Amino acid sequence: MVVAYDGSSFNGFAVQPGQPTVAGALTDVISRGLRREVVLVGAGRTDSGVHAWGQVVTFDVDLDDFDPLQLRRSLNRVLRPMIVVRAVDVVEGGFDARRSALVRRYRYTVLNREIPDPFLAATTWHVPDTLSISALRLSCDPIVGEHNFSSFCRAPKRDPGASLVRRVDYARWVILGDGLLRFEIEASSFCHQMVRSLVGTMMEVGRGLRVAGDMAGTLRARQRSLAGHIAPPHGLCLWSVGYPGFDS
Amino acid sequence: MVVAYDGSSFNGFAVQPGQPTVAGALTDVISRGLRREVVLVGAGRTDSGVHAWGQVVTFDVDLDDFDPLQLRRSLNRVLRPMIVVRAVDVVEGGFDARRSALVRRYRYTVLNREIPDPFLAATTWHVPDTLSISALRLSCDPIVGEHNFSSFCRAPKRDPGASLVRRVDYARWVILGDGLLRFEIEASSFCHQMVRSLVGTMMEVGRGLRVAGDMAGTLRARQRSLAGHIAPPHGLCLWSVGYPGFDS
Repeated sequence: MVVAYDGSSFNGFAVQPGQPTVAGALTDVISRGLRREVVLVGAGRTDSGVHAWGQVVTFDVDLDDFDPLQLRRSLNRVLRPMIVVRAVDVVEGGFDARRSALVRRYRYTVLNREIPDPFLAATTWHVPDTLSISALRLSCDPIVGEHNFSSFCRAPKRDPGASLVRRVDYARWVILGDGLLRFEIEASSFCHQMVRSLVGTMMEVGRGLRVAGDMAGTLRARQRSLAGHIAPPHGLCLWSVGYPGFDS
Repeated sequence: MVVAYDGSSFNGFAVQPGQPTVAGALTDVISRGLRREVVLVGAGRTDSGVHAWGQVVTFDVDLDDFDPLQLRRSLNRVLRPMIVVRAVDVVEGGFDARRSALVRRYRYTVLNREIPDPFLAATTWHVPDTLSISALRLSCDPIVGEHNFSSFCRAPKRDPGASLVRRVDYARWVILGDGLLRFEIEASSFCHQMVRSLVGTMMEVGRGLRVAGDMAGTLRARQRSLAGHIAPPHGLCLWSVGYPGFDS
């Protein structure tokens, strides 16, 4: 399934007992429809308040009594407007939303105007300060390529020794006009809070609180305390996930 | 003041005791700031759930202790993100947001795609059916000009004999791409539920449930029962208001 959601009212994607989560809501409806408990796998575990346009979710079904179109319609009837299932399809056995993914793409949107906008409040971070676009752009260069992102990641709770080396394919700021700026990044995978930590630090560069060269030094230092404040979750969106021969 | 708001969580613009309304929220904060009760006048009384980008609001102040910039900042600090004051300015005495207005402009946005979109759910009406764009466009022609809009208006409660004659300067459907259609209309003023009633009827034309020529007949008949179902409020936005020498 390809799933879009407004994360504002959810405690993130992953199931948490007693909490409203995206996977929890999907699991409930699918399990009721198929009359057996399903276990969902998502391509990215988005945090509380983070949105998705192209989240990918897989689960096992018995093909004999499975109608993809009917499932999509009944899910959208119940879960819209906050969760929308954009597509449901049958894939070969062994395909797994998380492990089969080659790359993830995130977008982070900033509204850089003095006056906020009620219609963009749920999906953009309002930064009223003057920003240097050229400094923002320069600050992208050092993070492209394979690096240890310890400075920009929360240490993994379950496995504190896990590698924080990631391969970033591209990282760029796109100027959309009207004060809207969008950070687009693609990587093999992301460690926890990596995009928000990068964006938070870059905003300090853009405001002139750090020089663009700081990004390279902070990355090399592998010290989380050197990075800037993490950007708020509501500007972030899991945009798409790439698989062999398919992009969500 | 020029005020934008997401109407989703308000019972409309006008003050209603004990109800969350836009004017109620603004009145509370301004009265507290100026330490006296102010009475606000709005250019358009938007209904429950209807949005605004360029609502205009006036009230009387004592110029000796009035700082427009400070008022805008303190209002936005308290009321954002749902209400945003875009501008505050001093105008000459006798200027009144409602009576000085020459024209009002509304926009109604429809998402005409099979699959809904969580990020457009609060501001567009999702119409999944196939629509005839040429029929929608033809249905605009009869309403331009000065007409009695009784067929498309709720009878005024306070004054049942009030005139429902209005002058429509333009009415058009704009195709924005990606399934987004926007109805744009400018009139001297609007009677109650006029835009939503026009859009609801036009959607029945677009779906093929009525022919485009129905619009002229329904208008001439001056019978509300002949119009279609009214469109839901969340697709509607008071876009701007025109005054002599100034557009919000």
